[in-house]
Amino acid sequence: MLTVFGSVALDTIRTPTKVLKNALGGAATFAAISASYFTKPRIIAVIGQDFPKSYYGILNRFIDLKGLIRENGKTFRYDGSYDETLSHRTTNKTELNVLGNFQPIVPEEYKKSEFVYLANNDPVQNTKIIGEFDRIKSSMCDTIDFWISTKRNDVIKMIQSVDSVVINDEEAKLLTKTQNLIKCAKKIMEWGTKYVIIKKGEHGSLLFYEDVVFPSPAFSMESIVDPTGAGDSFAGGMIGYLASKNSTKISIIREAAVYGNIMGSFAVEKYGVDGITKLKKSQIQKRFRQYKSMVRF
Amino acid sequence: MLTVFGSVALDTIRTPTKVLKNALGGAATFAAISASYFTKPRIIAVIGQDFPKSYYGILNRFIDLKGLIRENGKTFRYDGSYDETLSHRTTNKTELNVLGNFQPIVPEEYKKSEFVYLANNDPVQNTKIIGEFDRIKSSMCDTIDFWISTKRNDVIKMIQSVDSVVINDEEAKLLTKTQNLIKCAKKIMEWGTKYVIIKKGEHGSLLFYEDVVFPSPAFSMESIVDPTGAGDSFAGGMIGYLASKNSTKISIIREAAVYGNIMGSFAVEKYGVDGITKLKKSQIQKRFRQYKSMVRF
Repeated sequence: MLTVFGSVALDTIRTPTKVLKNALGGAATFAAISASYFTKPRIIAVIGQDFPKSYYGILNRFIDLKGLIRENGKTFRYDGSYDETLSHRTTNKTELNVLGNFQPIVPEEYKKSEFVYLANNDPVQNTKIIGEFDRIKSSMCDTIDFWISTKRNDVIKMIQSVDSVVINDEEAKLLTKTQNLIKCAKKIMEWGTKYVIIKKGEHGSLLFYEDVVFPSPAFSMESIVDPTGAGDSFAGGMIGYLASKNSTKISIIREAAVYGNIMGSFAVEKYGVDGITKLKKSQIQKRFRQYKSMVRF
Repeated sequence: MLTVFGSVALDTIRTPTKVLKNALGGAATFAAISASYFTKPRIIAVIGQDFPKSYYGILNRFIDLKGLIRENGKTFRYDGSYDETLSHRTTNKTELNVLGNFQPIVPEEYKKSEFVYLANNDPVQNTKIIGEFDRIKSSMCDTIDFWISTKRNDVIKMIQSVDSVVINDEEAKLLTKTQNLIKCAKKIMEWGTKYVIIKKGEHGSLLFYEDVVFPSPAFSMESIVDPTGAGDSFAGGMIGYLASKNSTKISIIREAAVYGNIMGSFAVEKYGVDGITKLKKSQIQKRFRQYKSMVRF
């Protein structure tokens, strides 16, 4: 069983080819939908009174929503613009709204989840919430530059409390104050986590454990239209696959990293959540096989 | 049989940890020494009267030097500085010296070479020289931003005359005026070359042919001290391996790209040419095996 704790948002995303206004977004949305192709995820998140019924319907198709709270006020909103290369995103506006005072509650039946994914939430909240699960086999967290810059010590404490950290390359460097990604990963593991997964966007990912590195190139794609949610889809695919196997064997974790890459590749092919909501399981399996032959030598 | 045409230089390389003055360098030096672990390469290059005997001795250990001409004047000199991350190099000075008026001559016995590597020379010279080989099985060229900016049409003509192009990611984008690397590679192949290998430094490489992409992550390394010559070592390792197999089968080309990565990884581990001059064949084989298990899933 997998529980995802993170944000559900209304996103305004400005890409060179299209502007999406108030689109369904948020780290937990992408992670949980992505995970849903492998297991039935549960979500802990908050929405406001303005959250559209149709979006609730989408979430409901993929996710157990007992932990999704609706509060008075507006849903968390994010507004960002991509540059021409789609590699850099600038934040135009963040409105926390109901997320600002959200006190997450873990529903009783979620507490038995063996797999927990903590999205890029406040590290203090993440650390607190992880303590409420009592049968954890594998927990995973993400973080972002905002928390690294404002609450670095809390980020490190959070890292001590989880089994694995997924983080993008720039954030790993910022967090560890180190340039070489292997050194970054070693430092993060020294803080007390067993696995570090560094996401490198179009260059794929690096999974670290013990003294091993498993690099997994991205599934090569010509048509990338919207990178929003790629990292969350990666993490969701990865932990969703682990949950489906109910395993933390190294061979399964390596496969999970590949599934992470593959879910990320679907996410960027379409705008918003479309890349991962309009998928069939068979497409994922097909792409996994294509990936295998792509990297073979 | 493999012939390499390119520069032999005296390099001043400024890294954050060490400054090398008048070190043995040059694209042909790195490419040919790297190739020498697979085949006995021949070289077409020029040096000046100041070229140290000891450097000649090093080249002579690895390379057939019939095509290495000594002319009146000074050897080509390059002076560059790396930034702290070792990802960016600034050119401080380039003195062409004897390279300025060099008219390369292909020794009669070199003309039967089945494999030819044209380093980042003037594209007009590269195109001219490739015409002098009459039994070519596979030819490969590189190029740099200087030629792309000053002689783009000649670069495209050169590309039409070879079987494969190795080029780094930034240069591929500059050359094709395209951001997506798959689109870059397609455009280069449309110009008339069969294979495109895009080098991405620490992110490894992408080999393209027909509608296939073979991504090959870099061999992960913690201790990179000097990236000079990594790309040339990559290309030399790749074509050297092809020459040793006397083959252009796809499966061999894919393996060759991995050997390219591996030779690049040795090059960056030590300063100057030390990474590839102090190697044993068994170390290369060992790293190839490590690479295989590194990427397995």
